[in-house]
Amino acid sequence: MLSMQNKHDYIINGNLFGTISPLDRGLAYGDGVFRTLKVVNGLPEQWPQQYQTLVADCGAIGIVCPSAELLMSDLTQLFTPDEIAVAKIIITRGDGERGFAPPAITAPMRLVIKSPMPDYPDINFTYGVNLHVCETRMSYQPKLAGIKHLNRLENILARMEWNDPAIVEGIMLDMDDSVIECTSANIFARFDDTLITPSLLKCGIAGITRQRILDIAYTFSLKTKIEAFDLKKLLSADEVIICNSLYGAWQVRSVQNKAWPQLPLAAALRAALTI
Amino acid sequence: MLSMQNKHDYIINGNLFGTISPLDRGLAYGDGVFRTLKVVNGLPEQWPQQYQTLVADCGAIGIVCPSAELLMSDLTQLFTPDEIAVAKIIITRGDGERGFAPPAITAPMRLVIKSPMPDYPDINFTYGVNLHVCETRMSYQPKLAGIKHLNRLENILARMEWNDPAIVEGIMLDMDDSVIECTSANIFARFDDTLITPSLLKCGIAGITRQRILDIAYTFSLKTKIEAFDLKKLLSADEVIICNSLYGAWQVRSVQNKAWPQLPLAAALRAALTI
Repeated sequence: MLSMQNKHDYIINGNLFGTISPLDRGLAYGDGVFRTLKVVNGLPEQWPQQYQTLVADCGAIGIVCPSAELLMSDLTQLFTPDEIAVAKIIITRGDGERGFAPPAITAPMRLVIKSPMPDYPDINFTYGVNLHVCETRMSYQPKLAGIKHLNRLENILARMEWNDPAIVEGIMLDMDDSVIECTSANIFARFDDTLITPSLLKCGIAGITRQRILDIAYTFSLKTKIEAFDLKKLLSADEVIICNSLYGAWQVRSVQNKAWPQLPLAAALRAALTI
Repeated sequence: MLSMQNKHDYIINGNLFGTISPLDRGLAYGDGVFRTLKVVNGLPEQWPQQYQTLVADCGAIGIVCPSAELLMSDLTQLFTPDEIAVAKIIITRGDGERGFAPPAITAPMRLVIKSPMPDYPDINFTYGVNLHVCETRMSYQPKLAGIKHLNRLENILARMEWNDPAIVEGIMLDMDDSVIECTSANIFARFDDTLITPSLLKCGIAGITRQRILDIAYTFSLKTKIEAFDLKKLLSADEVIICNSLYGAWQVRSVQNKAWPQLPLAAALRAALTI
């Protein structure tokens, strides 16, 4: 259930009593983008990067993103200064008539939803996580690669592949057997002093935490590389880490029959990411 | 604008005053399917095939489709016995919490929207249509191929490629340069006495009118084949036809620099499809 700390859990186009139009193109076609971010005491974490990415993702599909001022006003109305919670921002192209052609004049719809911080098991932080390898592949679409858009059926089908609560995430490969990411996380493999993460020019979502890890890796004397690798290479890594904006970074302890010992990098990255 | 012949233009879960939940997974992820059909004097055309396809498409992504009785009741409330109009049926997985995993118990959302029959130019029927060749490709995703699901950003990007009203549709190719379909239509190429339409096992939407043409082709002494072909082969066809549930079939008169003479098959198919 949504948080009941506050009377309102969502705001639509700045209206706490707003409704979603049945003609919204987000509903009709997934014609929009989204972001998920942690809000601490009323302040959205990494807001400059989050907003900049929202603008870029909107732009990639021809939507003019609502202003940062409007979105900050929405957040201020939903979140209280004494809570840690999650904001999901959805921007769609707004209403449209039937058919794929956008209307000549569009009015983007913005929706901000508040939900409680997930109650992640301590073990994910202290021990690490076990991953499934998804059968569902990510399709190659360079025009949409990297973008956090609303066409997410592949992620859903992949996430539906396991129920075992001991499995925290699923690795998704592309059609060429390259590792791309997890269903809701980016992935890094460390080989010696080099941290490698897959290129997301063909598919996948380029998360903000992925970029932040690329940016701070040098502080751990780690080099970084963005390049394709397959599952076999991933399983031969010295260490594997997954990341997203809510939990920071977790160490991967097992994938299929491969197990890794506990290592200190994920915790160190988490600490660095929270600064 | 939507038709104003009737007070209500949509019905949500059987409720003429219903609203779309901001937590609907159709909006969040395009987690659903849809159909577009012509409704003549209150009766949805090709209803058995349309409903059967809706059930199959829902099933392909793990949604239990609402009953035909419920949907017929929705249609009866929206459409009057003296009009020809369009029904769009959207079925989503319903509300969900944040995250790709569907809730343990789901309640699918059904939305039926009424809109007026498009005012197609006479020339599309009497002369034929000119097609653009889209730069946007369809991605290869066998788990979603053929399904009329709500992840349609590729079709939107393709449709946004032209504004010229003299261009009626756009041909979409896959990543291997095979012709797949148009943005909102299936496509047939005739070579002598054989009608060929692309395989949709890798991407594309398998429309009902496509299947009906495959079923009735023999009445025109035409053989049928489902196989891949590229743009060059399409341009060498004796005749090209596009089809969907609203207009039936149109002859293609030009693609790029290639032009075809006026031929009788499209009109004959239209007549046969309306029986």
